[in-house]
Amino acid sequence: MNERAQAYREAVELALEEALPAPKEGELTATVVEAMRYSLLAGGKRVRAVLALAFCKLCGGHWREALPFACGIEMVHCYSLIHDDLPCMDDDDMRRGRPACHRVYGEAMALLAGDGLLTKAFETVLGFPEPEKAAAAAKALAELGGHRGMVGGQCIDLEADGREVGMDLLREMDAGKTVALIAAACRMGCIAAGAGEAQMAAAFRYAQGVGMAFQIRDDILDVLGDAEKLGKYTGMDAAHEKRNYVTLLGAEAAQDLVESYTRQAVEALGIFPEDNGFLTEFALSLTGRES
Amino acid sequence: MNERAQAYREAVELALEEALPAPKEGELTATVVEAMRYSLLAGGKRVRAVLALAFCKLCGGHWREALPFACGIEMVHCYSLIHDDLPCMDDDDMRRGRPACHRVYGEAMALLAGDGLLTKAFETVLGFPEPEKAAAAAKALAELGGHRGMVGGQCIDLEADGREVGMDLLREMDAGKTVALIAAACRMGCIAAGAGEAQMAAAFRYAQGVGMAFQIRDDILDVLGDAEKLGKYTGMDAAHEKRNYVTLLGAEAAQDLVESYTRQAVEALGIFPEDNGFLTEFALSLTGRES
Repeated sequence: MNERAQAYREAVELALEEALPAPKEGELTATVVEAMRYSLLAGGKRVRAVLALAFCKLCGGHWREALPFACGIEMVHCYSLIHDDLPCMDDDDMRRGRPACHRVYGEAMALLAGDGLLTKAFETVLGFPEPEKAAAAAKALAELGGHRGMVGGQCIDLEADGREVGMDLLREMDAGKTVALIAAACRMGCIAAGAGEAQMAAAFRYAQGVGMAFQIRDDILDVLGDAEKLGKYTGMDAAHEKRNYVTLLGAEAAQDLVESYTRQAVEALGIFPEDNGFLTEFALSLTGRES
Repeated sequence: MNERAQAYREAVELALEEALPAPKEGELTATVVEAMRYSLLAGGKRVRAVLALAFCKLCGGHWREALPFACGIEMVHCYSLIHDDLPCMDDDDMRRGRPACHRVYGEAMALLAGDGLLTKAFETVLGFPEPEKAAAAAKALAELGGHRGMVGGQCIDLEADGREVGMDLLREMDAGKTVALIAAACRMGCIAAGAGEAQMAAAFRYAQGVGMAFQIRDDILDVLGDAEKLGKYTGMDAAHEKRNYVTLLGAEAAQDLVESYTRQAVEALGIFPEDNGFLTEFALSLTGRES
């Protein structure tokens, strides 16, 4: 699996660099383009891009065809991180081991860089040579990235502090913040290959399983990490600002949920005759079950 | 002209309300949707929407067909105002006579509302029933709204304070900040009607003429307004923080430019056999020449 994922990642890095080349000397808009590139080309696991390419291949397309979609989804993911890091949101100074975009370019330019990347995402997706598929993929990206998807999840997160947080709220928040873009990636891969409704539905179940398992595992590592920092792990008493699956259910039940969502993802792949195990392994690696 | 513009505006208000209905009771993402609606449905002249509808009709389509495009362009315009008003940008407390979005909903929610509107813009444009036209219009919106268009113009504006501002910089800044979205509106109207390249090119010349004339006139009113506040108008000595056409060229030469750009707009309409004067009058009204 690793070689194939690596080949996907390398192709994505090249395509991103091509989609947003360095500004020419003296260009008046150079700074915003540099700020966009600073964050977009900072590496990362490119999970969403890999999923788009892999689903294109799984549905009978050539994975390279889905590169405009893979790039578009990474741009949306990247803009959301830039805006999330701003002082009025999470106020994070660091991202991927480097100063956050606004720490280098200032808040106003980082805001514009995010806006520019979100806009460029649609331009890139719409660069797909077949207009029907381009329109369908861009529409999926807009629906899942917007107020009923990712932006909606961030809104729930913002307001969670002052609210009674139960399982319903947590599930809807993670459906927006984590599942939505993963679902967009898988769906856009299917669209690139001209997949049918049954394949799209299976791709969504896979995305939901992987996304939720990934998120809950993140919550577990988060709480365990905090507990380790405190020198002890005391389960429900672990010091933690925010409610999450572990503080609500306990670590063991949360781990059971990870397993069950991972199973949902793997089982969803059953309908694809061409499945060669890549997406199964990818799901297991993302959710901490890599052998 | 006024009745027709009014009919267009009313149809746009209805279509915007339909595209982004009020959240249902208890919806967890209600706040971001309310923030989006607060700014989007605050009225305004809907100049860009009217241009999209009018160019659709001018190119032989029915103007109502272009409503998804008209709504999308208003959403992009609206998101840019929300983000512009944020403390890290222009730090404006008021917009259209009401508190700015972030003064009502807070900075973080206003940021998300802007992101949500930009995303919703593409979803709305891509709701156009013919996928080829939908994709072409969304691509035009992305190209003209992004770092080579509107976002680029905002970047130039941000950096203008510390720079030697000459005519070239001013022209490129206004091409991004003002002309780009107006050009997108005219182009998308043409696309809705299935117009050809010659019509698209004429629509761009019209948009450029109207956009530049509108911007320079705004500069003139701005400087005259400041001078009136000071009780006198002293031409190049008028107190004004920012360089603009008046401070660079003087009021008379700036007014000559308004005339010449307005003429460019009106002359560009010459190739349309079905022109009935609406867009000529609209150009004159926008640039202060309304009879």
